[in-house]
Amino acid sequence: MTNIQEWLNRHLLELNLTEEMDYENGFTRLSYTKEEKQAHQAFRRIAESLELDVHTDQAGNIWADWRAASDAPVVALGSHVDTVSSGGGYDGVAGVLTALAAIKLLKDEHYAPQKNISVVCFASEESARFGVSTIGSKAVSGLLDKDDVADVEDAEGVTIKEAVESFGLYWDTIDQAEKGEKELESFLELHIEQGTQIENNGADIGIVRGVACPIRLQITAEGMSNHTGTTPMHRRSDAFAAIAPLITFVEEQANQMNEEQDVPLVATVSTVHLHPNVMNVIPGQVELGIDIRSVDDSLKRELAERIESFCKKIEDKRKIQVHVHTLVNNNSVFLDPNLQGKLAQVADQLDFNYLEMDSGAGHDVMNMAEKWPSGLLFIPCEEGLSHHPKEYASVEDLAKGTKVMAEYLKIETGELP
Amino acid sequence: MTNIQEWLNRHLLELNLTEEMDYENGFTRLSYTKEEKQAHQAFRRIAESLELDVHTDQAGNIWADWRAASDAPVVALGSHVDTVSSGGGYDGVAGVLTALAAIKLLKDEHYAPQKNISVVCFASEESARFGVSTIGSKAVSGLLDKDDVADVEDAEGVTIKEAVESFGLYWDTIDQAEKGEKELESFLELHIEQGTQIENNGADIGIVRGVACPIRLQITAEGMSNHTGTTPMHRRSDAFAAIAPLITFVEEQANQMNEEQDVPLVATVSTVHLHPNVMNVIPGQVELGIDIRSVDDSLKRELAERIESFCKKIEDKRKIQVHVHTLVNNNSVFLDPNLQGKLAQVADQLDFNYLEMDSGAGHDVMNMAEKWPSGLLFIPCEEGLSHHPKEYASVEDLAKGTKVMAEYLKIETGELP
Repeated sequence: MTNIQEWLNRHLLELNLTEEMDYENGFTRLSYTKEEKQAHQAFRRIAESLELDVHTDQAGNIWADWRAASDAPVVALGSHVDTVSSGGGYDGVAGVLTALAAIKLLKDEHYAPQKNISVVCFASEESARFGVSTIGSKAVSGLLDKDDVADVEDAEGVTIKEAVESFGLYWDTIDQAEKGEKELESFLELHIEQGTQIENNGADIGIVRGVACPIRLQITAEGMSNHTGTTPMHRRSDAFAAIAPLITFVEEQANQMNEEQDVPLVATVSTVHLHPNVMNVIPGQVELGIDIRSVDDSLKRELAERIESFCKKIEDKRKIQVHVHTLVNNNSVFLDPNLQGKLAQVADQLDFNYLEMDSGAGHDVMNMAEKWPSGLLFIPCEEGLSHHPKEYASVEDLAKGTKVMAEYLKIETGELP
Repeated sequence: MTNIQEWLNRHLLELNLTEEMDYENGFTRLSYTKEEKQAHQAFRRIAESLELDVHTDQAGNIWADWRAASDAPVVALGSHVDTVSSGGGYDGVAGVLTALAAIKLLKDEHYAPQKNISVVCFASEESARFGVSTIGSKAVSGLLDKDDVADVEDAEGVTIKEAVESFGLYWDTIDQAEKGEKELESFLELHIEQGTQIENNGADIGIVRGVACPIRLQITAEGMSNHTGTTPMHRRSDAFAAIAPLITFVEEQANQMNEEQDVPLVATVSTVHLHPNVMNVIPGQVELGIDIRSVDDSLKRELAERIESFCKKIEDKRKIQVHVHTLVNNNSVFLDPNLQGKLAQVADQLDFNYLEMDSGAGHDVMNMAEKWPSGLLFIPCEEGLSHHPKEYASVEDLAKGTKVMAEYLKIETGELP
């Protein structure tokens, strides 16, 4: 094992607050909890051991700075260390860890950057606790709508505002974490792929062109609850039986659109809530959540329209009402071609095969890309498994990512503009 | 309004612990709670006002006795006063109320029974709290499997045993509520129909032949959770998309069997649990609950077999595993033809149209019928609505039921055998 692999392994455990990675129940560090805080403290310790200047901003993001000169531009790298419930130890952590490891490599070879370098550990990237994602990077990019999210509650009824304050921050000043356009020059995030395209294409890394942000629909079907034993079949308005063909329709249409189009699209009926959901009562109300993604926004809209028409047909045919509510409609984000070019140049130089690809998942970089030239670098993860205790990226792949980031930093900070 | 209608109205309110019946949120008196206890106390007050001898048995059932002679047979009537969550004020209450009203009618006309008459208010009929129904009548009939249910928990983690003891009873002696075969001669329950067959057939009352007890299946589909954004359509094993056609299949097959057969059958996919049920994760596991009822047990079995075959086909076609678990398989219960004849005779005599019918719902009488000749009398309820705040039976229909029971009691207790 190389020095850097040994370093990565050791600090992977430290950031995950664990002594072994194959922990059966995975890792649970939800947004703005003491578990996220503990991982932040680990990040701070590692950054300080690399002699970086560390400070926390008003949103709880931690910035670890390698200062070249006070008036030099800042090149930023980073990701997050919070997780979903029973998630893996690489989603987020890989990006923070390799960014620090890249600094370690550069310091070991006594590299002297001409620009400032910042490694940022964003707070609260995952939506698992509040249904709101990337809170820390939204605040930095000026995209956080404070009033819109303050009262959003977790499953225990704790609001985001309360969680933020119990994290040791002030809700009233959270938006002061925003950075001006001139305060950063660029941003690069490394993340595990959470898919298998890199592996399937025999590549070492992925260089991401665009992030496919979702359209999310909430479908509510209203029938009539009644006793399962005493209501004859022909007198029912069973909302679940009526809406069930939509579940099949969404999958069929997504498959068909993938046959017709080159740009991939994915669509999933991922949530259901039945009312009253008891054995002897006919379902009176069903709520389905549908997640649609593609970097081609027109394809997403096309499928959303087909779903709406299909719901109308169900409504006409059956004794139920169907409402379609758009929860989220985010346009896809395209990353900086110039930064992609630098990553490709580094990959060639290191003799790594790279795949130009799109990201189906959202990341902190989405928000940063709205304000600064930004890039996203993927490393493979086993079987594409993520948000799962068995999530795994090899130390070899972490080391490859580290080398790409170190060489990229040399290009970015080698000379002043 | 007649005297008996006035009496029924007044005591309907008393049993429901309310001052008006059209209470927006319905009534919530779950099994072995203080709300059920309060309704029991109301029952006791009304029974004592009719000069009945009242005592509570070891299961919490209340018996109100009109004693003719200590060695005479006992003719029993009764139902329950507990409810589902936000239920109606007639399911159960109607049977207890009309039984007491029948006593009131007979006493007012100075009728002298030759046999003892008991009105029983059974404890804990609804399964809403523990998923276990008819606990009180099971205990009386010797059908309560104490060890099987002791540790069953409600949503707050309270066990049946704990609930029974907090109700002022001893779990260890609950089975001593069982009555010997000779202790009762017969049992009659009046209940709201919870359907619309009586009304659809232009009848006044329903005389029930059989109770259609359910087969209940739990279907578990196991696929693989993964990220909705990063997993291409062709690499998924989405358990929800795979199992969805079963929801449609169950309804289609039930409809088809009703076309082919004279004996009605109903089947409902009434519950669903998705794992993890979050917007950005492909459903890895789905659990569906299916409730199948018909008085023809062979029809129920036939549909259960078709469902099992259909699940096998899904398993063969898709990358998921499907398990079919039979939760409940109760044979239908047939009521006493002799008792049905007496009810028909009374209806003719009162010039009430009656419908011979089956019950799609289970009632306390199911258990009593296992040990004693038993009958079930239905009165209409508006639009068949039940387990719902809008559940409603008119005072005219309650009075008709009362008259049928009073006249039936005269036949049953007019002379010693």
